[in-house]
Amino acid sequence: MDEEKEVSAQSEEEKQELLEERMESELNEALNHKDEAAVRRLVEDSHPIDLAIAMEEASDSNIVYLTSLLDDAQNAEIIEQADEDLQVRIMKLFDLNKILRIFQHMSKDDIVDILGDMPANRRKELVKLMKTSDQTVIRDLLGYGESTAGGIMTTEYISMRSTLTVSQALEKVKEIAPKTEEINILYITNDRKQLVGTVSLRELLVAKNYDTLNDIMEDNVISVEPEADQEDVARLVSKYDLHAIPVVNKRKGIIGIITVDDIIDVIEEENTEDMLKLGGVSKEEDVDSTVFESVRMRLPWLLVNLITAFLASATVSLFEDTISQVVALAAAMPIVAGMGGNAGTQTLAVVVRGIALGDIRLHGNEKRIFKGIAVGFINGLVNGIIAGFVISQMSGNTALGLIILVAMTCNLMIAAFVGFLVPVVLKAFNFDPAIASSIFITTATDVCGFFIFLGLSKMFLPYLLQ
Amino acid sequence: MDEEKEVSAQSEEEKQELLEERMESELNEALNHKDEAAVRRLVEDSHPIDLAIAMEEASDSNIVYLTSLLDDAQNAEIIEQADEDLQVRIMKLFDLNKILRIFQHMSKDDIVDILGDMPANRRKELVKLMKTSDQTVIRDLLGYGESTAGGIMTTEYISMRSTLTVSQALEKVKEIAPKTEEINILYITNDRKQLVGTVSLRELLVAKNYDTLNDIMEDNVISVEPEADQEDVARLVSKYDLHAIPVVNKRKGIIGIITVDDIIDVIEEENTEDMLKLGGVSKEEDVDSTVFESVRMRLPWLLVNLITAFLASATVSLFEDTISQVVALAAAMPIVAGMGGNAGTQTLAVVVRGIALGDIRLHGNEKRIFKGIAVGFINGLVNGIIAGFVISQMSGNTALGLIILVAMTCNLMIAAFVGFLVPVVLKAFNFDPAIASSIFITTATDVCGFFIFLGLSKMFLPYLLQ
Repeated sequence: MDEEKEVSAQSEEEKQELLEERMESELNEALNHKDEAAVRRLVEDSHPIDLAIAMEEASDSNIVYLTSLLDDAQNAEIIEQADEDLQVRIMKLFDLNKILRIFQHMSKDDIVDILGDMPANRRKELVKLMKTSDQTVIRDLLGYGESTAGGIMTTEYISMRSTLTVSQALEKVKEIAPKTEEINILYITNDRKQLVGTVSLRELLVAKNYDTLNDIMEDNVISVEPEADQEDVARLVSKYDLHAIPVVNKRKGIIGIITVDDIIDVIEEENTEDMLKLGGVSKEEDVDSTVFESVRMRLPWLLVNLITAFLASATVSLFEDTISQVVALAAAMPIVAGMGGNAGTQTLAVVVRGIALGDIRLHGNEKRIFKGIAVGFINGLVNGIIAGFVISQMSGNTALGLIILVAMTCNLMIAAFVGFLVPVVLKAFNFDPAIASSIFITTATDVCGFFIFLGLSKMFLPYLLQ
Repeated sequence: MDEEKEVSAQSEEEKQELLEERMESELNEALNHKDEAAVRRLVEDSHPIDLAIAMEEASDSNIVYLTSLLDDAQNAEIIEQADEDLQVRIMKLFDLNKILRIFQHMSKDDIVDILGDMPANRRKELVKLMKTSDQTVIRDLLGYGESTAGGIMTTEYISMRSTLTVSQALEKVKEIAPKTEEINILYITNDRKQLVGTVSLRELLVAKNYDTLNDIMEDNVISVEPEADQEDVARLVSKYDLHAIPVVNKRKGIIGIITVDDIIDVIEEENTEDMLKLGGVSKEEDVDSTVFESVRMRLPWLLVNLITAFLASATVSLFEDTISQVVALAAAMPIVAGMGGNAGTQTLAVVVRGIALGDIRLHGNEKRIFKGIAVGFINGLVNGIIAGFVISQMSGNTALGLIILVAMTCNLMIAAFVGFLVPVVLKAFNFDPAIASSIFITTATDVCGFFIFLGLSKMFLPYLLQ
């Protein structure tokens, strides 16, 4: 079994933990004492993300004090790095004019993210106060779904006409570079403004000055449309090892790019979602959700589970007369059902992950299902023999042991089948494959486990009573 | 509840699926007919990763034919992109000299990955045949753990002395660029060869020619030591939005870098591991594991679960006399236990994910545990009232309903506590927090659920018999 010991006594993780704790206490200390010099020193010496993390625990009044010491550009930098909760808190503390000033130092996609979390009327007021040209871009970006390519793209990229020479392009890059963040890839357009290729800064540097961009560009560009799901975009970036992926409209015009650091966030977000949904929790929950939020997000699934639990219970009721004659059945039945649930969850974990990674498609899974059932058969047999032996020794009843053996083998085969089928069918109907799969599967294994075990017991009751 | 419908009729995912299927059938067609022209056309038009994926389904003889048509550089490119299983297959088909020739076109870290999957004696023979200088680098790299910073770093990066001027540096970059992959960041060293800063290609382009690298470099470099766990490295890259992170030895000398595309692989790998372990499956399993592999990887956990299932069964046995008097208890008890298991899994999913993302530390969790128990109390009460009402109506026994209510509320509070405690304690003892947590937690909720429910039933037996 793979228990994983971590290597060094003071790992990178512990170092980061210490760093964050120290930062937080120093900042709070400085803010509580209104020690302007100390605050400024901390801001000077820290990465904005570390400041943002330390600020999460600060009081509102301390945040007001801290942000009042900073200029708009510094505030913009910290707010960009802050998590959603902190962004919302900070924005509530600022008036519209201050927000507008800070927005001037932010990229459009960050502005849109922040606007998206604001109350609708405040958002509208803010957009109305912007320059007309900005309004158009912002409204366009706000129009895309939050988890689509359009929703996560940035509009800051360099595009150039393919007819430019290398030296002309290099001149332009030097001109634009100070104003934009991502310049490692130039997006090359033709005379109809369609994206036709890319040139990396490296290729530009080593190319001959009189070559045109057309000569040196890579013309096999992988791009996405703005409606593409962010999960699919992440899969493309990961598959082709891209540093950025362009977003193009129906006419092949480039309208934005998505950089790899945003893709990492998407991957983390989607993985969190999968894991939480698999456990029957809504994707918005985290360890710092309030009691009310947690209840709101978990209760619905527990209620679904309650209904399915009644199914399992009803199955048992069918056999109450049998149980009343051999009460040892009551003690043995959770073994069969529980093992089925666990085996089903094993298959489920492999399948949900396989779907997320794009390894499982909707068709041609017959061989995999058959293989899974074979695995269930072997695992059921091994566990069934052990469980049957122990139970028959303890109860002095060989028939009970044999029934356990058969019931467990059947239930683990069913678990393998259901564990594969449920997520794939959910996916086929365009639902999230992780969603509540574990509830459906444990219900199926409970119901089948109880039914097979108690049904066999009823059939062979005379042998059990001997 | 969040069912997530996917947007467009033909999503990016479906497009990719079609593309991969078409590619696979075209390649197989061409290979089966030994149609050299068609094969060459496919290789010409495709991204190496797409070729590698299509090759996964080809027969060994077809792979021999395909690779014989390609030159060493083309073979290197495809092998670099292939997944581990395919790499192992291809390498078995080649003799040592061919492998050595192909290695000449690969970066050292890819070579080391491939060597790591080879039988030890073949690996030794290969290394012995390399140039002495290469041997040293390869042996060093082979010495690092597979999932450490040293194990995933590449030795191809550009480092320059801080005393160079911008124009000297630019000249050097132009010289080196054609030979190396990653040149967007230059690593700057002092006269003792210590890493003291970084300069991005963008900064280099816009700086004044007579500035030195020392003048323009960013001197707050985030780096890791080669022993650092890859998961911690990924967290740093993600936190600070880095495109590459340098690896330095104890003397602060740079020995390699890790680029963001490798970090994405690490994140996917670690997430797969977490999800599989949470489900009680070993990390190496995927949907295409053989029956034998799957059994080997799942059976140990099922056996652990079998032992814990006996614990639950033993708890029920304690109350066989009570059950024999009120056989309806047998039907009701799976509801209490099952709901506890589900509630525990909900907490578990949130906590394991929180630990993976670095949101949960080992200390100061009292408030979170208390909050979790409050959530368990409310969820238990709501579900308990419903279950109690239904059961008392169906059985005509109010006492049974009240017992269910109390047992479910207690069990869901216990589930919240155990669901938090188990992963955090595992983590504190440096075990993987995901490992088999679900088995421990469902055992705890089964045992506690049965004990509380049947114990209360025994205590209040006279009321149940009325």
